[in-house]
Amino acid sequence: MVVELISVGTELLLGNTLNTNAVFLAKECAKLGLSSFHQITVGDNFKRMYEVISDARSRTDIIIITGGLGPTSDDITKEVVANVVNKELIADDHSMDLLMTYFPAKTGQNITQNNFKQTLKIEDSIVLDNSNGTAPGYIYEDDKCIIILLPGPPSEVVPMFKNSVLPYLKKFQNNIIYSKMVKMCGIGESKVETMIIDLIKNQTNPTIAPYAKEGEVHLRITASAYSEKEAKEIIKPTILELKNRLNDYIFTENEEDLLENIIIKKLSANNLTLSIAESCTGGLLAGRITSVSGSSKIFNEGFITYSNEAKIKHLGVLEDVISKHGAISPETAIAMAEGVKNKTNSDYSLSITGNAGPNSLENKDVGLVFIACAFKESFTVEEFRIKGNRNRVREYATTYALNLLRKELFKSI
Amino acid sequence: MVVELISVGTELLLGNTLNTNAVFLAKECAKLGLSSFHQITVGDNFKRMYEVISDARSRTDIIIITGGLGPTSDDITKEVVANVVNKELIADDHSMDLLMTYFPAKTGQNITQNNFKQTLKIEDSIVLDNSNGTAPGYIYEDDKCIIILLPGPPSEVVPMFKNSVLPYLKKFQNNIIYSKMVKMCGIGESKVETMIIDLIKNQTNPTIAPYAKEGEVHLRITASAYSEKEAKEIIKPTILELKNRLNDYIFTENEEDLLENIIIKKLSANNLTLSIAESCTGGLLAGRITSVSGSSKIFNEGFITYSNEAKIKHLGVLEDVISKHGAISPETAIAMAEGVKNKTNSDYSLSITGNAGPNSLENKDVGLVFIACAFKESFTVEEFRIKGNRNRVREYATTYALNLLRKELFKSI
Repeated sequence: MVVELISVGTELLLGNTLNTNAVFLAKECAKLGLSSFHQITVGDNFKRMYEVISDARSRTDIIIITGGLGPTSDDITKEVVANVVNKELIADDHSMDLLMTYFPAKTGQNITQNNFKQTLKIEDSIVLDNSNGTAPGYIYEDDKCIIILLPGPPSEVVPMFKNSVLPYLKKFQNNIIYSKMVKMCGIGESKVETMIIDLIKNQTNPTIAPYAKEGEVHLRITASAYSEKEAKEIIKPTILELKNRLNDYIFTENEEDLLENIIIKKLSANNLTLSIAESCTGGLLAGRITSVSGSSKIFNEGFITYSNEAKIKHLGVLEDVISKHGAISPETAIAMAEGVKNKTNSDYSLSITGNAGPNSLENKDVGLVFIACAFKESFTVEEFRIKGNRNRVREYATTYALNLLRKELFKSI
Repeated sequence: MVVELISVGTELLLGNTLNTNAVFLAKECAKLGLSSFHQITVGDNFKRMYEVISDARSRTDIIIITGGLGPTSDDITKEVVANVVNKELIADDHSMDLLMTYFPAKTGQNITQNNFKQTLKIEDSIVLDNSNGTAPGYIYEDDKCIIILLPGPPSEVVPMFKNSVLPYLKKFQNNIIYSKMVKMCGIGESKVETMIIDLIKNQTNPTIAPYAKEGEVHLRITASAYSEKEAKEIIKPTILELKNRLNDYIFTENEEDLLENIIIKKLSANNLTLSIAESCTGGLLAGRITSVSGSSKIFNEGFITYSNEAKIKHLGVLEDVISKHGAISPETAIAMAEGVKNKTNSDYSLSITGNAGPNSLENKDVGLVFIACAFKESFTVEEFRIKGNRNRVREYATTYALNLLRKELFKSI
């Protein structure tokens, strides 16, 4: 079956919003084995939205529309779909009950007149409750096409899809699509392809598709089969061959694994702790670590030592080290890592110092970054030259720091 | 003139990549006064890409295509466009020169066979140099349509668009579109609309469009006019009226202003410094501050005190305060803010403590967050109950902390 995603919103056409719904829904549909050939974005305009939905309805089995279900006057998706399928909008008692009962408690706001719009449904449609917002979703099915209407905010789309839409769509599943994601850090996309070009050229089932992420390269290995078990068997030899060739760079073959999760799992399992000292990344590294629920077990404290004085005062970096080698140097990175480890009595420590730009500092280029990892009496330090703007240098440096720690962890424990 | 954005890449259809190019290009095109009615995403498939580009060519003036110009074998955009416009791919000496001269230095890698694909251009097209990657871009113009081909990585798209495409497109500009963005924090979208529904209903030129961002509400006020000066005059009364009604929540009317920029500008101008102590946000607040170039002038250091021990040891929070009120309490937030201010001798300090989830802590709900700001002998503390998952709680708490500091700054200096 073929699914088409339609994102509604003038704010998307004007570039005011990043379309994270499309990413989430595309990923979920791919997992269900649904094919996807087009994604469309269209504005809150009756005529154009009508055309886009009608066109999609004529060529696809399932349409998932996000956006335009809100209370405000420019939200017209429900009205347009009702017109396309030739149905009325009718009062829905259940939605009215929910609005009157839960709205003030849920939102902390009084009901305003425009909220009542959200108690109307398309005739013959299924209403999907929204436990994270005020706009219900809808599924309308006829012999031509299934149309699924979801709200716009990602925090409402994700739970509504998982709780209501996924169980509904599963009944249409036939052949399953199963994939593994081999993730690498420390190697470029072009080099990866050169090393596996023979595998890519000969691919049929499974297929291999490379993607570059910030500081990482991912290979998606996808098999089509009657069962997950069979698909796993189809994928196995390819994964083995990739490991033969690229093992030094691979950190996982599971899509949901992130560098930070792998690290936290490993530290937790071994009852080890981590501390962090950041300069140019200014909190991003600690932010990645603490994004993981359960990180408090392994991470107690971090220091953002942006100035030289802070490096000296809080981490005990010697003034001499900074004046002789500069703040952007392997020596300072090492002193920061050892300083924070000693100061916090943690088992491992990570430090980052570098120039995120936009201007050269200490006569050192934008993008020059030193990352150190300390453990017991030993340490490792690596030099990176990261291309791009301030944001890119900071993001890549954060990823490289996580990867350095990962390598150290899997080497020593 | 009407522009249509086409994003190429199976990775977009599978949901493996967030389409940040579409956001950037849509915003730039809107600024140029180009209308945009559709954005399309299509995979690396010859037939479907051919259809999508042909369709767009039949109904639009300008097509901007991103992606599929890379060195790997699934990159076929150039080939498809050449077919659509009925031209050959021919060798481009200039691209060949650049490849041979700069490629190894630029990428730190050897030239591989597949890189030579990037030295071919569409006959009669303009080649756009890529100073941030290896794939050149192209502009092909005939009497039917202008087709602009850009690479996929955002770090290459942005400079190539600004340096080469923008000057090219400016010659087609006629009426200009000028907009201001009134940004608010501390109020919900629905409430904003209720307060200005009469303005929205009567809008023609300028138009008013509301957008909800994480923790913020934005109103875009857009005017169409012959000159920027005239557009500014058209917008002025609407901005004044919005300020009349919503002044308490408005922090800027300039699109490029972020809370963090406003804060850093204000602190810098007054030679004041800031320090930060974070618990549940774990570095995100410092990360937002240090994302701004020039932040080192006002920000020297930050502490991520995730554990109670760290709060006591590094910030001097009294053990009694935590045992009596809990780590998630206004008292602890205040003690953290005062502690970090004293410890670092900074003028202002900000602290965040709360429960980001997923489980209740100290019998306190997920989403309960306390934020304190200290300055001289005084302090302010605010309580927030943020709905949603761990990530959302952390992001919103960070935004609310920046907004609290902003309010304090503009109150006292």
